[in-house]
Parts: sequence; C-alpha cells; structure tokens
Amino acid sequence: MIRDRLYLFDTTLRDGQQTHGVQFSTSEKLQIATMLDNLGIDYIEGGWPGANPTDSEFFAQAPKTKATMTAFGMTKRQGRSAENDDVLSAVLNANTPAVCLVGKTHEFHVVKALGISLEDNRDNIARSIAHLTSQGREALFDAEHFFDGYAANPDYALSCLHAARDAGARWIVLCDTNGGTLPHQVHAVTEAVIASGIPGNHLGIHTHNDTENAVANTLAAVDAGARQIQGTLNGLGERCGNANLISLLPTLLLKEPYCSTLETGIDVESLTSLTRVSRTLDDILNRVPQKSAPYVGASAFAHKAGLHASAILKDPTTYEHVDPASVGNARIIPMSNQAGQSNLRSRLADMGLTDVDGAALPAILERIKQREDQGYSYDTAQASFELLARDELGLLPSFFEVKRYKVTVERRKNKYNKMISLSEAVVVVKVGDTKMLSVSESLDELGSDRGPVNALAKALAKDLGPYQKAIADMRLVDFKVRITQGGTEAVTRVIIDSADGAGRRWSTVGVSPNIVDASFEALLDAINWKLVQEGAEP
Amino acid sequence: MIRDRLYLFDTTLRDGQQTHGVQFSTSEKLQIATMLDNLGIDYIEGGWPGANPTDSEFFAQAPKTKATMTAFGMTKRQGRSAENDDVLSAVLNANTPAVCLVGKTHEFHVVKALGISLEDNRDNIARSIAHLTSQGREALFDAEHFFDGYAANPDYALSCLHAARDAGARWIVLCDTNGGTLPHQVHAVTEAVIASGIPGNHLGIHTHNDTENAVANTLAAVDAGARQIQGTLNGLGERCGNANLISLLPTLLLKEPYCSTLETGIDVESLTSLTRVSRTLDDILNRVPQKSAPYVGASAFAHKAGLHASAILKDPTTYEHVDPASVGNARIIPMSNQAGQSNLRSRLADMGLTDVDGAALPAILERIKQREDQGYSYDTAQASFELLARDELGLLPSFFEVKRYKVTVERRKNKYNKMISLSEAVVVVKVGDTKMLSVSESLDELGSDRGPVNALAKALAKDLGPYQKAIADMRLVDFKVRITQGGTEAVTRVIIDSADGAGRRWSTVGVSPNIVDASFEALLDAINWKLVQEGAEP
Repeated sequence: MIRDRLYLFDTTLRDGQQTHGVQFSTSEKLQIATMLDNLGIDYIEGGWPGANPTDSEFFAQAPKTKATMTAFGMTKRQGRSAENDDVLSAVLNANTPAVCLVGKTHEFHVVKALGISLEDNRDNIARSIAHLTSQGREALFDAEHFFDGYAANPDYALSCLHAARDAGARWIVLCDTNGGTLPHQVHAVTEAVIASGIPGNHLGIHTHNDTENAVANTLAAVDAGARQIQGTLNGLGERCGNANLISLLPTLLLKEPYCSTLETGIDVESLTSLTRVSRTLDDILNRVPQKSAPYVGASAFAHKAGLHASAILKDPTTYEHVDPASVGNARIIPMSNQAGQSNLRSRLADMGLTDVDGAALPAILERIKQREDQGYSYDTAQASFELLARDELGLLPSFFEVKRYKVTVERRKNKYNKMISLSEAVVVVKVGDTKMLSVSESLDELGSDRGPVNALAKALAKDLGPYQKAIADMRLVDFKVRITQGGTEAVTRVIIDSADGAGRRWSTVGVSPNIVDASFEALLDAINWKLVQEGAEP
Repeated sequence: MIRDRLYLFDTTLRDGQQTHGVQFSTSEKLQIATMLDNLGIDYIEGGWPGANPTDSEFFAQAPKTKATMTAFGMTKRQGRSAENDDVLSAVLNANTPAVCLVGKTHEFHVVKALGISLEDNRDNIARSIAHLTSQGREALFDAEHFFDGYAANPDYALSCLHAARDAGARWIVLCDTNGGTLPHQVHAVTEAVIASGIPGNHLGIHTHNDTENAVANTLAAVDAGARQIQGTLNGLGERCGNANLISLLPTLLLKEPYCSTLETGIDVESLTSLTRVSRTLDDILNRVPQKSAPYVGASAFAHKAGLHASAILKDPTTYEHVDPASVGNARIIPMSNQAGQSNLRSRLADMGLTDVDGAALPAILERIKQREDQGYSYDTAQASFELLARDELGLLPSFFEVKRYKVTVERRKNKYNKMISLSEAVVVVKVGDTKMLSVSESLDELGSDRGPVNALAKALAKDLGPYQKAIADMRLVDFKVRITQGGTEAVTRVIIDSADGAGRRWSTVGVSPNIVDASFEALLDAINWKLVQEGAEP
C-alpha cells in the first residue's frame, strides 16, 4: 500500500518564541534547529527576519539542514508593491528556500484591523505570494483566523485561499489563530476547503491549545485530508501554546490508522530520541519538565494503582497503549517491587558495578526515595546517584571532610564612589589529620564579580593537599537553579555540570533552602566523583 | 428549545489521587469536595472506601453536599457472592447514595488478569450491580478498557454493558483506561453503543490524556450522545492524567454548539470562579500553576506578538475566543522586544498612565531592549517594567537609597557537633537625611535556615522609617532563579513574586552575575512598586 506523505512543519523558533516568558538567544536557536533537523522535521520556521535582531542573526548563521529552512513574515501592506515593501524585503533577504507569509482571510479582521477593502486584501495576498515564487522561493500562506473567517463569510475566506494558491503557493495553511475552534468544526471546514478545490496535499493545519484541543484539531484536519501539520516542541507558543509535536509524532508514527496510511520524514527508530529532545528543550528554557506530559513525561508510564501495577507485571500491554521504549521513555513501577529493583540494577551496571548483592538494593531504593521527597532529582545528576549508591554499598572512600565555610557578599561604594559587589569565601577542610584553610574572592580575570558560589568553588578547589593534582583539570561548565518542593517547604535545587581534561562531563545535585549550601553540596559531589574516577587513595 | 441535561462527574479525589506524587490528606479531600460542590458538580467520587485509610476517613466525615457523593470500588470477585465479598462490603459501608464499580469488558483482561471465563466475568458484573440497587444505591458501572475491548470483541464488550444496564445500573461509563484511543474512534464506538440499545442519557465517558486527547475524546463522546462526563480538576490522574474539567467546563458552557444544546448543573456566573478553583487546587498540592493552562493559565490571555497586541487594543475579540473575565482570568499584554509601541501604550494605560506623550515611547522601548540584552525579562515582571517606565517618564519618586549591604553565609558545627547553616544580613539605607542600619538572620519561626536572600529581604523590610507602615503587609510568595546570558557572560536572573494584604500580587526582576545582588535588586523593585501603589510621599 502506498502511504500518503505527511509533512511536518516546526515553528518552535517562531510561534514558540511567542510563549510568555520565552526569549531564545541566537545560540539556543541554532541548537534547537540542529535538534529538529536530526529528528527529521521537514520544515523549520526560524523566525521573522527584520522583526527582531535575534531572528535576523539566526538566519545569518543558520546551520545547513536537510530540513527546508523557512522565514516567516506577513503579506505586503496596502499602498506599496511587494517589491517595495521593506518588511517583506527583510524577510526575503534572509535567503531561505521557503517563506511563510501570514495574511488575513476573515472579513472582520480585514475591515477592523487593517481597515482596507476585501478586494485589496485578497490582492495583497496574491501579489505577495507571486513575488515569493518569482524569486524562486517555495511559498507558504498562513491563513490567519481561517476558521472564524470561514464561519463569518465562507466565500470570501475561501477566495483568499484560492488567490494564494493561484499565485503559486505550495502550501495553504489553515490557522486557528485564536485557538477557539473545536475538532468537529476543524474536520468539517477542512473537508469544505478540499471540496472547494485546494488539494489535501497542498493543505496545512496550524492550531492553538486554548480549549486543550490543539492536538485533536490537528488530527481532525489530517483525518479530513490535510497533509502538512504545524506545531512546536513541548507545545510552546502564544497564550496556551501551539499543537504539541512531541505528542503528535508518536500518535502519527505508532498508532492506527495513521501509521499504516501516512509516512513522514521521521523513521520510527528516531522516535526513541523524543524524550531526550523534549527534556533538552526544557533544559534550554530552564523549565521543570512536565511529569504528566503524554509519551515523554516522567509519569507517562508510571503505574501507581495497585491493580495496574500487578497486571503490568503479567503483561505490560495490559495498561500501556505503546511501549515506553519506543519514545525513549521508561516505565516506573513503585520502588518496592521487583521492577524497581531491575531498573536500579541496570543503572548500577552502567557505572561498572555488575556484581551487587540483591539484598543491598532495597536500602538504595529507600534512600533515593527519601532524597527525592526532600527535593533531590537523580534523572540528570547521574554522578550524585553514583556517589549515593557507592556510599550505601560501602564503596565510597572518605577523601576529605569539610569542617566549615563562610561566604561574605558585600555591596558598597568603592573609592570612586561607584557601587561594587564583592564576595569572599573561606573553606576549612581536613584531609587525614591535616587541616587546610583556603580563601578566595569572586573576581574573574577581568576583575568582575562572579558571585558567592564562584568564590566558594574556587576556595574549595584551591587546596585539597594530596588530591590537588587529581582535580586540577576540573572545571565548572554549567550551573542550574530551580526552586522546588522538599517536603512542605520550598527548597533550592542546584545542578552543577563539571568537565575535565579527559573529556568527561558529569552532573551533581545539591538541595537546601539556602542556595549557597545547595551549591556547595553539588560542588562537593562533583569533586568526590572526580576523585573516584581518578582512583584517588584516601 | 429544550436542552439535554449533561451530568458532570468529578473524580479528582479518586482517580486524581492516582497522580504520581499526589497524596491528599483527609482535610484536603474535604476542602476539595466543598469546592466541587460550590461549583455545581453533579457527582463527587470521593475515593475507594476500605482500600486506604484516608478514603475511609473521608467518607466518615464527608460534608453534606448538593452533589451526589459517590464511592468507588470493583465488581465482586469470582467464587463469592456479592453479599459476602468483603471488598465490596467495605465500599457499601461508606453509605454513599451512589456507588461506582469498575469491571472488565475486554476479553484479554478477563483471561489474562482475572483468569476466569467470559461468562463468569459478565455474571459478576450483573450480580454486583444488582446488589447495589437492592441496597437502594444509585449504581454506576465503569467499563474498564472498553474501547480496546470493543475493538477486540465487540459482542462480548457490549454484552457486559447490557448485563450491567439490565441489572439496574443508572449509568454505564465507557472508560479509555490506557488512554490510547483517539477521538474519531471514541465517537464511532460511542455511537455503536447507543445503537446497541444503551440510551445516551445513561451513558458516561471517562478518558485519559496519554495522547493529549482526553478533552477531545470527552467531547467526541458527547457529540455522539453520551450525557455524563468524568474528569478531574486540572487534569490530575494516573500517568498523564484524566480529562481536565477545568478545560471542558468553559467549552461546554460558553461555546457552540454545546451552550445552546446542553445544560449542566453549573450556571454561567459560577464559571467566573474557575480560575480561583484551579489555583486553589495547585495551592493545596503546592504546585506552581501551569501558565499555559487553557482558560485559567496566567498566559491564557497574554498577547505577546506585536500584531496581536495592536489588534486587541482595537477590539479584544480579534484575538480572544472567549472573554477572560468569563472564567475569572485576566488579559495580559506583556512587554518584550517582539512587541511594538502598541503593547507599550496599552501596558501604560493598564497602570493608569493614559496620557503619555508618544515622543516618550521610543526611549522606554530602547531602555527595555538594553535591559533585555543584559538578561532582564519583563514578560512576567510587570512591576519592574512599571518602575522603569515611570522612571523614564520622570514619575518615579526616590523614596530611599541603599548605601551598602553585607550578607554572611556560614556553615559550621554547632555546640551539639551538628553541621548547621546560618545567614546574616546587614543593610544600610538612607531615607532623606536619616541613615538606618538593619540586621536580620535567616532563621524562620521554626528555627530553620532559609538562606541569604531571606535574611536580606527581612533586613531590608525591617526598618524603612516613614515607609514602614506602607510595606508592613507585604510578603514574598515566590522566587525563581534562572541562569541566562547577559551579553557574553552567564548571569543570574531572579524573579520575585510579592503579595500584600489588599490581594495585590506583583513580580519584579533583578539580574547580576551574583545571585544575591540579583535578588536584592528584585527585592528593591518590589518595595518601590508597593510604595508607588500606596501613594507614599518621598
């Protein structure tokens, strides 16, 4: 059976950037674009060149992708030609192979927001699209408010689509801009558009989640015949977000009727990276991943109900609609039972401990559970997990002991009457019988204050006596802070990424109501893990 | 036109309690039940009496409600009579007017999980339901895995429903237990069930969000004729959660075709409490409310795109599918470098500055842009934005000046040889010609260390002389930290949420490589904003 090709269009970098509180840097945009390309997305909409500096910079530096890089803009304004519209010119100047222009198809918006005639608006659409194709670009037309427009004046709304299509648009994209349209309506209107003569393989769908139906609306349009879907990673986007590609992709690739009738540019094996892709985006945004997220959430395959857990042990398909491994996720069964222990065993094997007595496992699980209740998280902090397991197994040497530390943060006027900040840290460490005092301040090589955690890290690493050589090539490469819940109180969770000259990179975690304490705990773990790797002798 | 009655069944206290990480106390369950009853929900499923102590306790203390209080349980086990099944007896002993029993309708589960014959399973369903009705209870039958069961063996699955119905069940509830069924399938199967002779006004729908379609699946069943919907507040529930009633209710009550054809026990005016209900549940769970939540999220009516914001100023219906006030929410026009002067003008109007000279706008936008380049973000930190705008317009009094501060963080052994942390902050402020020194430590009322920012906040608020009265009712309610890029260096961005006795809640931002400095800046903004609101005289 020949399957229909369904095209995937990602707008994380454009509509996703409209998320309240989200502002990508250029380097973050480049990182996300590469991730989308590796996943196998067909179109990457990178932003609106000319509308803000980051977007222009992104296109100037855009990576070479298999995906079709797409610039976003709007149809030309009234009273100037497409050639002489400076906003449109800025979009074309990004030199992308494809350009997606948004235009109005709802008479109310033409009259109210633009204040021009219906004919002029339709003419602006046609001339803008024709200009794109005359420049050799693949043209996409985002029909803004199409569903509301169709409800108000179906003939006019459709005539705008046909104007774009006749002018050479490769894709006509039906946008539910306000997110208020419901699935049965999307299905009926998409069918009507196809019946009007726009073929489904030239028709796209762009939905928003304002009624929690963005995914269902996308599927409804696909059911009716649309063959391009627009969405974002993790459902980022204006207001309640766009259609979530992370939820849509597994449904389309793994589930009937889609998996037998449609094909995409993504192969089923690539789906196993989906959980990682979703969490990497959260990392970039410093967001806590949503545990209940479909397919990729930490709880998506967590079976809490006793009845479910026992059936799962007999056969996982009893309570799982897809295999968690197919999307790179994992099943979670309450720690106490057999499944929890086999998870742990495989993590221990990962760190080289293959010969662990089964009797030791419950104690490790219990300690992890206690620490998680306090706000720790070992999902990414693999090095801290290793130290905890080694400690419980009696395999963690005591290299040194921190007797005390003191950090001072001061802000005052300097001799030039300018406000300056300075931090200073004193750390007292005992190695064997030798007590060592170290002091550092927070200034970097340029004389700028880098804060108390920086001073503390430098003081701690300054003199560890016999271990100094083993840690000399360590450096702190990232530092993430989250306020989270430990028991009933808000606590600070700090995750520190360290690296060394041998190319190792490891993550450690610290938790405390006191951010300096939490950071110090993560720093200590980072050093202890490095000492274990180096085979340091206590 | 006579509208069909649609019944609302809430299972926050039962299936919602299956959420990974959620465990309600009895008093929390009582609080939530009262909230559901005030909203106008028809059925409140309170838990499984006998299965855990909290649920039994809840029913023993259950409040008198207009809603029908419902106990959950499972059909009797094989080999004993309904009268002599101790699990079923415990459910009946809760003495609720309604009882909902889950039973199997999927042959695979009957054989694999129960290991009994198909006939015996159907007989167990009939006898269990008949036992409920003989005791004068309203009986509901939750048909577990119904959609998968119907796909595997439609005749058998349907025969189980009819067995329950014939035994006197008031409601037959089709459960998509694994959450893997898609909307068009739910629609078709629900139609088939009605065609088999179960009337729609005896048919309920219970969905899970594993494909992000729980809301759409619920609507699909309603479209097909089902007249009871089961869901939870904020979509709590096993794995990815249940159908989210907070999203469903406004769609059903405010939007076509539902609002004209169906009626519920909730009147449209009560919907204005919806945002509060959703956030109260988050408060109970100590969760940060999801900003992008449909209808009730802080971002649900936030218009970031410049094009959207300018149209909203002309007519809010251009980019809003419902009025935010109808669900107790509010519109936000955030600042960002994507937005133009129209965003700014509307934001200034919101803060009472309607008469601003247009010539002043570019300078404000330029300053925002500069600050954003340094790592500031004004999307959420509206109060800091207001201070910046006021300052640029010459409308910000200088209330006080911070001369210097010093914070000490110390970790050492106490006299009991236990490691403890303690922070201390000294702040020196000048109000007019008077210099004030304040000192505070970081211990809370229980003697626990809350860290350097806490100590600093307390010292700063301790003595502001003539302003003390104006800030006395202020408190810090949230604190968010993000490491971001300011220019070429990583900096820390701190956002602080404050609240006061008048019910105001405001956010401020600070940025510095030094986390203590960044926090201090946000704290200063919080106090200055409050002083502006109180009309303090410098």
